[in-house]
Amino acid sequence: MIEAIGLDADDTLWENETFFRVTEAEFASLLADHAEIDDIAGRLYEVECANLERYGFGIKGFVLSMVQTAIELTDGRIDGQAIGRILELGRDMLAHPVELIEGVEAALDALSGRRLVLITKGDLIDQERKIAASGLAGRFAAIEILAEKTPAAYARVLDRLGIASGGFVMAGNSMKSDVLPVISLGGHGVFIPHQMTWAAEHADPGPDPRLHHLDRIADLPDLITQIEAVP
Amino acid sequence: MIEAIGLDADDTLWENETFFRVTEAEFASLLADHAEIDDIAGRLYEVECANLERYGFGIKGFVLSMVQTAIELTDGRIDGQAIGRILELGRDMLAHPVELIEGVEAALDALSGRRLVLITKGDLIDQERKIAASGLAGRFAAIEILAEKTPAAYARVLDRLGIASGGFVMAGNSMKSDVLPVISLGGHGVFIPHQMTWAAEHADPGPDPRLHHLDRIADLPDLITQIEAVP
Repeated sequence: MIEAIGLDADDTLWENETFFRVTEAEFASLLADHAEIDDIAGRLYEVECANLERYGFGIKGFVLSMVQTAIELTDGRIDGQAIGRILELGRDMLAHPVELIEGVEAALDALSGRRLVLITKGDLIDQERKIAASGLAGRFAAIEILAEKTPAAYARVLDRLGIASGGFVMAGNSMKSDVLPVISLGGHGVFIPHQMTWAAEHADPGPDPRLHHLDRIADLPDLITQIEAVP
Repeated sequence: MIEAIGLDADDTLWENETFFRVTEAEFASLLADHAEIDDIAGRLYEVECANLERYGFGIKGFVLSMVQTAIELTDGRIDGQAIGRILELGRDMLAHPVELIEGVEAALDALSGRRLVLITKGDLIDQERKIAASGLAGRFAAIEILAEKTPAAYARVLDRLGIASGGFVMAGNSMKSDVLPVISLGGHGVFIPHQMTWAAEHADPGPDPRLHHLDRIADLPDLITQIEAVP
């Protein structure tokens, strides 16, 4: 039997990556005024990945990586005004309203008798802001904001909440962060792809009976029933 | 009886503010090369306070505030190289070794039969790094990293851990974040001042039987015994 259901937040419950891509496009057009550069987004991605260990996930680290990329790609010729504009792009992201993904509220309604746990990663203050603004906090028995979604991090959460991994289902849009770590612990993973998912979150696993695919979160309640029906 | 003891981390268990002050001095000397400006630290502090709600506590927000201050104080004339140097100052902070405060290990040894909870705030990834590097993680029954240390945030932690506020003692170097919120919930607060504490953490409360002062963390075990001896 399924004891508890974990749900990712960014791009599973509400839109997130879209705002990063919009900001990235504004960043590229800002830099285009200062230098002729190919593949600005690709260079930014390299800087982001190199900084991930020290900055972690989230908007503040993204802004610092944009500033660094702008300096590197212009050999330091970028001016203070343009960098001020990059900081503003970050502040706009931090103030952006939360937009729930279609079907989320109905799915949570259908799962309301279940023990639901929200498990997200990123900037603590920004995640808390979005959780509050989403109006969904009351749906969850527990809310866990992690620095990284590794198998060890999930194991600590399950241990703390007293959930056996075999009775745990985790659903989210990242194969790498939401699905595979939980399967590696013996739980179920539900991959609900979002049309925009950050490249660093991609993974291409082989087939597994505990790995499930859904096109939309609206189908999650039925899937849970099906998982429980398998002897 | 005291059920559990909460300990702050930055500037209670290990040095932290010192590194901010050192970086601030380097920032001021960097800016002095670009403009004649009075009270750079005071201007930076204003920007930090204005950004606190959106950036929260921690090094990444501090770096973003330094960049913003540099741009504002030079009317955008600061160049990319100098801003790149500010980013480096932040990266150095994020990589700084953890230096335990004198007496911490002995105090934790003396309290080892107690239920200890580490309660800190700031950047999730940086706090986790410091907790791991401190070698102290195993001393604590629970580790809580909060975005803000408000009475409501403490109440959630105590509720989750099943600790009655009347049986809880919180010790730390911030009157505002460590001591007063817990006293407001009916617990005990132990103020252990550090020679450097960020101005935004200061508060000047009146006398309270549940508010205790210590000069050094080494005296915490004895204080706990004294608190329990009061009928």
